[in-house]
Formats: sequence, structure tokens, C-alpha cells
Amino acid sequence: MGASQQEQGPLRVALLGCGVVGSEVARLLTQQSADLASRVGAPLELVGIAVRDASAPRPLAASVDRSLLTEDAEGLVARADIVIEVMGGIEPARTLLLRAIESGAAVVTANKALLAEDGPTLYKAADTAGVDIYFEAAVAGAIPIVRPVRESLAGDSVRRILGIVNGTTNYVLDQMASTGMSFDDAVKQAQDLGYAEADPTADVEGFDAAAKAAILASLAFHTRVSLEDVAREGITRITADDVAWAAQTGHVIKLLAIAESVTGDDGAHGVSVRVHPALVPLTHPLAGVRGAFNAVFVEADAAGELMFYGRGAGGAPTASAVLGDVVSAARHRVLGGKGPEESTYAALPILPASTAVTRYQVRLAVDDRPGVLAQVAQVLASKGVSIEAVRQPSEPSVPGADGAEDDGSTGVAHLVITTHAAAEAALAATVDAIAVLEPVQEITSVLRVEGA
Amino acid sequence: MGASQQEQGPLRVALLGCGVVGSEVARLLTQQSADLASRVGAPLELVGIAVRDASAPRPLAASVDRSLLTEDAEGLVARADIVIEVMGGIEPARTLLLRAIESGAAVVTANKALLAEDGPTLYKAADTAGVDIYFEAAVAGAIPIVRPVRESLAGDSVRRILGIVNGTTNYVLDQMASTGMSFDDAVKQAQDLGYAEADPTADVEGFDAAAKAAILASLAFHTRVSLEDVAREGITRITADDVAWAAQTGHVIKLLAIAESVTGDDGAHGVSVRVHPALVPLTHPLAGVRGAFNAVFVEADAAGELMFYGRGAGGAPTASAVLGDVVSAARHRVLGGKGPEESTYAALPILPASTAVTRYQVRLAVDDRPGVLAQVAQVLASKGVSIEAVRQPSEPSVPGADGAEDDGSTGVAHLVITTHAAAEAALAATVDAIAVLEPVQEITSVLRVEGA
Repeated sequence: MGASQQEQGPLRVALLGCGVVGSEVARLLTQQSADLASRVGAPLELVGIAVRDASAPRPLAASVDRSLLTEDAEGLVARADIVIEVMGGIEPARTLLLRAIESGAAVVTANKALLAEDGPTLYKAADTAGVDIYFEAAVAGAIPIVRPVRESLAGDSVRRILGIVNGTTNYVLDQMASTGMSFDDAVKQAQDLGYAEADPTADVEGFDAAAKAAILASLAFHTRVSLEDVAREGITRITADDVAWAAQTGHVIKLLAIAESVTGDDGAHGVSVRVHPALVPLTHPLAGVRGAFNAVFVEADAAGELMFYGRGAGGAPTASAVLGDVVSAARHRVLGGKGPEESTYAALPILPASTAVTRYQVRLAVDDRPGVLAQVAQVLASKGVSIEAVRQPSEPSVPGADGAEDDGSTGVAHLVITTHAAAEAALAATVDAIAVLEPVQEITSVLRVEGA
Repeated sequence: MGASQQEQGPLRVALLGCGVVGSEVARLLTQQSADLASRVGAPLELVGIAVRDASAPRPLAASVDRSLLTEDAEGLVARADIVIEVMGGIEPARTLLLRAIESGAAVVTANKALLAEDGPTLYKAADTAGVDIYFEAAVAGAIPIVRPVRESLAGDSVRRILGIVNGTTNYVLDQMASTGMSFDDAVKQAQDLGYAEADPTADVEGFDAAAKAAILASLAFHTRVSLEDVAREGITRITADDVAWAAQTGHVIKLLAIAESVTGDDGAHGVSVRVHPALVPLTHPLAGVRGAFNAVFVEADAAGELMFYGRGAGGAPTASAVLGDVVSAARHRVLGGKGPEESTYAALPILPASTAVTRYQVRLAVDDRPGVLAQVAQVLASKGVSIEAVRQPSEPSVPGADGAEDDGSTGVAHLVITTHAAAEAALAATVDAIAVLEPVQEITSVLRVEGA
């Protein structure tokens, strides 16, 4: 009965989940009901909120009418025109959304994990049933990015997306950069402030960003991209030294979700999707994205450079994105029409991350004597890796860094080599060859440079 | 016959105008035709391009099939499913768009001047005819801002929009800030580079930004706002000294288009819409918007702070926005449904710009002797204007500034007073009272501080 279309009668909205996001969605649906009705052309009636334990205390949802709470999610879904899923996780979210779609309801979800794992099942079901599925909140919270990529850029060709799409890791890296603290200390501070979970793995290992990268890549390149297509490296190996050296060379380290059009060795056109820490030049708009903010930088053929900036998490920001989608779906109920469906016509091959040609910054500790720089440069030349700059900088000051490894009197010098764009394989061979040079003590780090 | 709906047959697209934007639209329609057909679900066929003189040389439109050019705009409009207007100006654009709408065609326009002057006539006609009218390209070029404000934020309440929506003036101010050059020199440079017109009035006096402010305010506040509702002040009085002092106090001067929710003296809720130069703190995301780029900063109740950044002008960027709209309109032709119409249900009063309570920075030249600062502070206190900071800074260095007024030996000191938020009337009275103090030589400038 979910599909019944009423010209001006209220639209029945079911909410699955009443946590940080759900309670904000419920609050806004209630407090803004007059505005929402005017914008939709019909009132939205919140008919129930499915929770695991209806009797549990809900300090976050103080303004929510408790009589709306129910443990019967399936029963709730069956009597809704629009189902909002903000419970997270794969099950029972997937089953409930499929049930909603089959009964003719439009669905709005913020569930990036589910979409990255099994989005196509949901998209196909929605297409078959002729109902809307919207998910703006699944990527970068409040920031409108799904709709702009799907609709505003529908007449353009996206070349590359660089996203700071995980607020926890951006906070951690920003704290390291601004205070010189270690990775562990910055994670602990993020936990104390509620920006990071007790188990921060999903954030710091890049799983969360990878799910968002998969979703963005799918939309931008009209190609099905799932989580397992995303090459992933987290930020756990980034040290205070890395961050300090980055600053000294005019960069900041960010965890980037990258989706870009690439050309393989055989000339085939494809897509590379990856998540890894990268050096971003301080002059790039992404470099100024501080704290737990998110931003998505898009390069398109005709539009050129675009950036979308805002809060990527939190109850109210995520609820804002959810409600924008609810209004779109509700307007279609009232006025007819349907939102965009999954678009996979391009069906580009997903090429390995190593296909992407990027600039690199390689840092080495070498014996402090003449001629070493020439030796290293010779290796790069022999491997066909072109050098943009070699710096032999003084030790950067790392305020509060725990334990500098050199005491300044050991005859160690540091070299920082920035390459022009190079293939990953060529760079790896170069690094291997440099590592065995006699005066080279250690390859301290190898980081990609993006956004140049 | 424009309204005829064909299930999978080609959609006939008419283009009005073949200048910088029009020739890019034509190029993209042709070059991306396969992608566009896949995204729309039907081919788009460019059936004609209306120009004033079909025989004129068109160096910009080298790739355009000249047989498409026609001087019969009315005849062209009559045989189109979608009409794209990129000719600019009020007439004949308005008449042609109304003709298109009446014949059942969807319309896409980049014409901010027309929308700010007479948008409601077009919106009403489109509503009556049941056709789409889209205008993403009319505000901030390639940057998706119309769609996000109308659709993504439809479930939220916008509090304030601060926009850098004129690339010419942003380029001029950025050049002044980065090189210390005068306003006149910066305008001349912008003209040499093609960023400014031979007659730069529409840009430097803020008319262009005011038109965009009116459009954004209408969308954000669901209220009809026209050009004459916008209080407007250009940047012609901004000096190299102003820019240098701004930097010294941690700000940058930007021409801002501002639309914000305000409360009048009588407690009535309304909207203030204005364009003026303002000091923006260097820590604010808008401060980093360099050169001819545009950005729109949005503060919403639930979403918090959002920013949209990109190219605000130019052929290809504007064409990108136009084509995104064309795809939306075309999908509705194929799949049914309709885009958002004008939303004016809130019908808020437009309150005078003086209603907006903002911070101010007042700069004075005073006799260099003890006690002056105390005298000035006393005046502010007596008028109820609260001081955030008074600085007595050393003369800023103005590289290349022509003719510093003081030679350092005249017994002149400078005071820079930053107030807390104050009403315009109170601030004006305060400035008048300070001006007549005996040791005050000159009120050098009074500028608003926004985005704090």
C-alpha cells in the first residue's frame, strides 16, 4: 500500500534509526513541517521511527514523540510512502530498504557502507519498482555533492575527483600539522572530542573514505564501482616528521579519495579509484580544509575546477542532506516524475591504482658529504623519472614531536626529491635503486603529490 | 508544436546566441552527443542557432556547423523542444523565451539581468504552460549553486548567503592585495586580460553582483526579490591603502553579495539583500578565493557552513552549467516530471540593508599624541557601540602604492577600530561624533566586516 498516490493528502514518512542522525531528522521533520509542506506541496507526516529497543533512554531524541517509536520495522515500512534509513550497517538495513521499494515507497538512505557493498541491488530494485532512491547524505554529510555530480554536471565530462571525505582523519592530520603532535596523540584527542570512534580503524585505515570514493566514482564516470575496486591506504604510517617536512616543502598531508579518468598501458580508457594520504600544495583549495570539515574538488572538461565544502558528519548536517532528498522524493509523489536512476552506460574498466601517473615526494636520510645528491639524481635519470626539485633543507622544527631521530651531529643530511608525474612501477624501481646506494642511510618516506 | 513528446526520438534543441557561451554550448552538444543521449535517454538534436547576422565571421565558433545559423529566431523557437538562451540583454531575449514557453518548449537561460529584472513573468509563464525553466548558469557560472539551494537545501533553513559572484571585481581586488597596485591599474590589467569590459561599470559598481544576489535571495528565502530590492555599493572607492590596512589587521577585501535573514526594529522577520565591499577575515574560506574565481558561502540551520567554489564566467564553464540544465529538462521530456518552479510561499518582507547588524572597521587619522585613543573610545561607549579591538598599528607597507599621504613626520597616527556587531544607524552616528573630535584629522574609511 506504500505506493498509493494522494494528490494533496499527507505523505507518510517512516524513519529507520533514531541515533545521532535519526533524532535530528525527526526533529527537523516536526519543527519545519510548515515549510516542508509548502516546498513539497503536501504535508509530510512522520508515522513511525523504528528502533531496536523502544524502551531505551534516548537523551539525543528528547524532542521526539516517544509514541512514534516502534520495534516493528517491517510493519512500519509497509505503511510508508517514503522510507528514510539512517540505522547504518548492512543488515537489516538492506532487507528493510528492499521491502520498502517492493511495496512502492521511495527511499532515502545515508548508508554509504551498504551502497558501496551492494548499491546495485537497491538501484535495480528501485528501477524495477519505478520509485526514487536518493542518498546525498551517504557522501560528505551536508555537502551537496551527489546531486551536483549526477545532475549539474550531467552535460560535462568529469576528469578527476579529489575528496577529503572523512572528517576524523582530516581532524587528525590537521592537528598534527598545526601542533606537531604525533599520530597517536592526535587520534586520542579526536576520540576525546567525539570525532573518532573508540576503534578508529574504519576511519584511519581509509575504509570509510573508500566507500565514499566508490559511490562518487560510480556517479562521476557512469560506471559501476564497488568497495573492492578501491585501492586503499590509511594514515597510520604518517608521522609528525612527515607532516613537518610537508610544511617545509609547501604542502599539507591530506587523506584523499581519488577517482580519475586514466589511460592504461594498452591505451585503454578506464577509471582509477583510490584512497591514500597525499601531499597537497598549500596553494590548492583543498589545503585550506581544516579540522573535521570535508571538501570535494572536481575537475571537469568544461566546468574546470569546482570545490564543494562543508560538514561531512554530525547529526544536523547529515539530517539536512537527508531532508533535501526527502523533499525531492516527496515532490515526485505529488507532482509526478522520478529522480535519476543508476547510470552505468559508460561501463569503463577499473584500472589498478598503479595506472595513475602522479608526482611523488621521496625523502631520504643520506651521509652528509658532497656528491650524494648527484648520485641520487643519476639514479632517477637512469630510470626515466624526471626530477622537479631536489631540496637539501635544514631539519624542520617539529613542535612537540616526540623524539627526533637525529641529534644534528651525526653526519646525516636529508634529501627531499619531488618528481614530475611518473608511473608507480618506475617510481618503485627508482626507490629500490636509490635505497641500495652506499651513502643512502634510509628511505624515510614516499608520498604521492596530488592537486598540483 | 514545441510540446510534442516523443518517447525515444531526438529532442530538438534551439540555441539563441552564438557568442563566447553559445559557441561552447554548440560545441559540447555536438562533441558529447553520445554521452548526452545516454544520460538523457534520447538524442539531443541541435536544430538551429539564432544570431543577429548569420554571415558575420565567427572565430569563436569555428567548430559550429554554419548551416545551423539563422536570423529567424522566432521561427527557430517554434520548432524546438528545448530552447537555450545565451544571448543576454532584456530584449529580444524575454520575448523569445516567452514565445518558447507558450509553444510548450522547456527553456534554459543564463540571463541574470533578465531574471533579476523580470524573472517572475517568465516563471509564471512556465508554470502556466507546465514547462521547465532552468537557470543554473545565471549565477556563478559553472558552480552548481542554484540546484543545491533549490533542491539539496530544500529540507533546511538558509540563514545567510555570502557570495563572491563577480570574477572581474575579485580579480581586481586580488591584484590590489597581492601586488599593492591601485584600483585603476588593477582594472586596466583586468581589461588587458579580458576579465573586464571596456566599460567596467556593471562589474565594479556591483550591478552584476546585485542581479545574482537577487536571484540567490529569491531561491534561498522563498521570497520574490528583484534587482531594485538590492542595496548596492561597488568597489570604486577602495584604495590600495584600504587593501594594505585590511591585510595588516588579518583581513582581505572582497565584493560580497549578501542575502540574510534579519529581524527588523519592530521584531518582524525579513530578508536583507545587499552588495558591498567588506573585510573578510583571512581565516574564512572565502578569503582564499583568488583571481577571477567565484564562491558562494551558505550558512544553514542544520547543514551549518557550506561553500561552493569554481569558475564564475567564461565560455566553457558557463556552457557546462547550461548543459546540466538541458539534460534535466530533456530527461523530463523523456521520462515525465518537472523541475522546481518559483517558490515564493514565504513572501518575507525585504528589509533595508541598514537592518543588518554587522561588525565594522573604522580607520582614522589622528594627531599623534597621548589620550586620543581614550577620547575616541569614549565616543563609541556613549553611542552604545561595543569595541572589539582598537589598534594603533605602524603604517602598513604598500608595495607600489602611489603616493602615501603621510611622510612619517607630520605627527599623524592611525587608529583602526573594529566594533562588535552594531546597527548601521548607531555606527553612522558614532562616526559623525568621532569626526568632529578635535584631534581627529580624517575618517579614512568605514568598512563592514563579514564572515566572522
